[in-house]
Amino acid sequence: MSIDVRAVRQQTRGVLNVAHLNNAGSSLVPRPVAETVVGHLRREEEIGGYEAAEEAADRLQNVYCSVAHLIGARPNEIALAESGSRAWAVAMHSFPFVPGTRLLIGRTEYAGNVIALRQLARRNDLQIVVLDDDPYGQVDVEHLQRELDRGSVAMVALTHVPMADGLVNPAAEVGRCCRAAGVLFVLDACQSVGQMPLDVESLGCDVLAGTGRKFLRGPRGTAFLYVRASVLGRFDPLILDGMSTVSSGAEGFEVRGDARRFESWEASIAGRLGLGRAVDYALALGLDGVQERVGSLAEQLRTELAALPAVTVHDHGITRCGIVTFSVKGSEAGNIRARLADHQINVSVAPRPSNEVQAILTGSSHAAEMVVRASVHYYNTEDEILRLVGLLCR
Amino acid sequence: MSIDVRAVRQQTRGVLNVAHLNNAGSSLVPRPVAETVVGHLRREEEIGGYEAAEEAADRLQNVYCSVAHLIGARPNEIALAESGSRAWAVAMHSFPFVPGTRLLIGRTEYAGNVIALRQLARRNDLQIVVLDDDPYGQVDVEHLQRELDRGSVAMVALTHVPMADGLVNPAAEVGRCCRAAGVLFVLDACQSVGQMPLDVESLGCDVLAGTGRKFLRGPRGTAFLYVRASVLGRFDPLILDGMSTVSSGAEGFEVRGDARRFESWEASIAGRLGLGRAVDYALALGLDGVQERVGSLAEQLRTELAALPAVTVHDHGITRCGIVTFSVKGSEAGNIRARLADHQINVSVAPRPSNEVQAILTGSSHAAEMVVRASVHYYNTEDEILRLVGLLCR
Repeated sequence: MSIDVRAVRQQTRGVLNVAHLNNAGSSLVPRPVAETVVGHLRREEEIGGYEAAEEAADRLQNVYCSVAHLIGARPNEIALAESGSRAWAVAMHSFPFVPGTRLLIGRTEYAGNVIALRQLARRNDLQIVVLDDDPYGQVDVEHLQRELDRGSVAMVALTHVPMADGLVNPAAEVGRCCRAAGVLFVLDACQSVGQMPLDVESLGCDVLAGTGRKFLRGPRGTAFLYVRASVLGRFDPLILDGMSTVSSGAEGFEVRGDARRFESWEASIAGRLGLGRAVDYALALGLDGVQERVGSLAEQLRTELAALPAVTVHDHGITRCGIVTFSVKGSEAGNIRARLADHQINVSVAPRPSNEVQAILTGSSHAAEMVVRASVHYYNTEDEILRLVGLLCR
Repeated sequence: MSIDVRAVRQQTRGVLNVAHLNNAGSSLVPRPVAETVVGHLRREEEIGGYEAAEEAADRLQNVYCSVAHLIGARPNEIALAESGSRAWAVAMHSFPFVPGTRLLIGRTEYAGNVIALRQLARRNDLQIVVLDDDPYGQVDVEHLQRELDRGSVAMVALTHVPMADGLVNPAAEVGRCCRAAGVLFVLDACQSVGQMPLDVESLGCDVLAGTGRKFLRGPRGTAFLYVRASVLGRFDPLILDGMSTVSSGAEGFEVRGDARRFESWEASIAGRLGLGRAVDYALALGLDGVQERVGSLAEQLRTELAALPAVTVHDHGITRCGIVTFSVKGSEAGNIRARLADHQINVSVAPRPSNEVQAILTGSSHAAEMVVRASVHYYNTEDEILRLVGLLCR
């Protein structure tokens, strides 16, 4: 199903004000999502926060179903959270690592995750192995296979789409290798969810973290965590409270049997309902159509940019996505961003992932090269892309 | 300054619909708080989530100043969070406990905290000592002093106002003892903040956790953590990421120097701005006046209830607050709650804290006695209390 661009733009208030090419930061939420959030906040004002939550109990339960449906999981494998990277980190910190084992990661991991990984490695005496890139800049699946064959692997952790590179890592191939080796596969899908179809069976991942505010077009402060039911019992939740446990006769309390063992008491119910609405909205549009339009807009942008003599496009990969990174000779990324903002074009600035992971892991000083990141979504237009390119021409 | 009840009710949409006596669950937010939250959400819709956050950067920084002002702290001693009990637990789990030391707690601790404490004790080989109540049902300060004198105390952790008892624990006395003994004092102020003045100097606490949604009248999913600057360096954050660390030349990254080392990447900016607005609203009313009105309404309610033959009021303590707990002979608490809800009166049901702490700690089976909890705020009226009592008469 192809995207009706006019219709989705009519449902997006922000397109009247800005050419929003910062969807990898945080998308413009569509009206139905905004109205769901605001509607629940109004209801809380009218009858009270707990009373409104009680009234919305079925709809809140449906959020778990929607998220599960989005990624081909079951509702009891989903926990809701406020931050995708925090959800990811809580799961990682809840895993009973065997000291001396090895953690395999990619070279373009999300930097915040790498900081958590270094902490984890120190606490659990783990060795972190950074897998090579293949010639296309993606994680090298042959290198992965060799490391798996060497054994002593605690887990493979991969960022599906890097923060500042247009590539999509071959997660399904990684998943097949992990499954064959019987090794846990943790996928950070914060930058991929919402811009392409995801299915935990085809991906072969055991844990997946996603965020609401990026390509899913959900509210800020919303995220989710998937943990495969068959491995859930191996995780000993980092922090137990009245949410992650249930009363039981024998022990007084015990850890919940579902993925909500990773949740904490109290959350923004309005935000969670908004996340569910965003997922339903994406599902109704169809993720195949979303991916097709996002991919085609991004390719148009890369082609137009590459034709400008002063511009270098940095994206790697065979399969590419909505993230386009580039730099302009003689202009700092921050200045480009500011100048585009003056013309109501939103882009962001991000560090090139190339050396950052190694620098964080080794604790060496590094001055990351900053690039401009323009990230398109299906509601962007060819015209917005031409406006961006036109300004860069000048 | 006494509360202008008519004015605060005009600023509270919900009072037209309900007699909201569930302020210990979640208060009705006042209009300025709701408009702050919705206003920011609209701005995110209009120009993008990150762009709106950048525009609100100064106001967001002011939230830390407001919260600090509310409790007599400094802005760099404040972290914002989504859940008060999660913030409390993250701080507790970040403390480097010496195995074999003792953790002193009260008998009416928040049950969720006790679950976390039991997990902490198991992980760190700590002994949890439950302090006696004094004859007024408060934590027994003399017992505390004896235990401090015995030594080997890692920390004293206290819930300021229990979830289901009208008492206010003598936190300042506890603080004085802790300070004299050089022992860390952690105060869970989720049920006290917003209904009475709090000052970390007079309380003598080193860590304080508070929530937005209860007596502060802030949005759901908002909370804060205070950690005294002089002890901050002793906490090794449970989870490090790009928010809790800063880039530094020498090590690649290091833990932040302020309390935001406990924050995680990504949050609802709208919620945080709403929390700040709620704090400013409370400060403008004046917490002395708030406490006076809340105390007087609660005393009226206790007196009226005590006059009913079938009703037993369960509150203890010398200083009492807005929480009133009671039971009705021959009627289950849940039924009372449902019947009152039919008449647009919001109350809640809660377990009596008496034996719950011991039951959780020893892992013994317990069927907590459930009581009705009616919790008043300054915007409630004498008339609403009479309506509640009138219905119970029937």
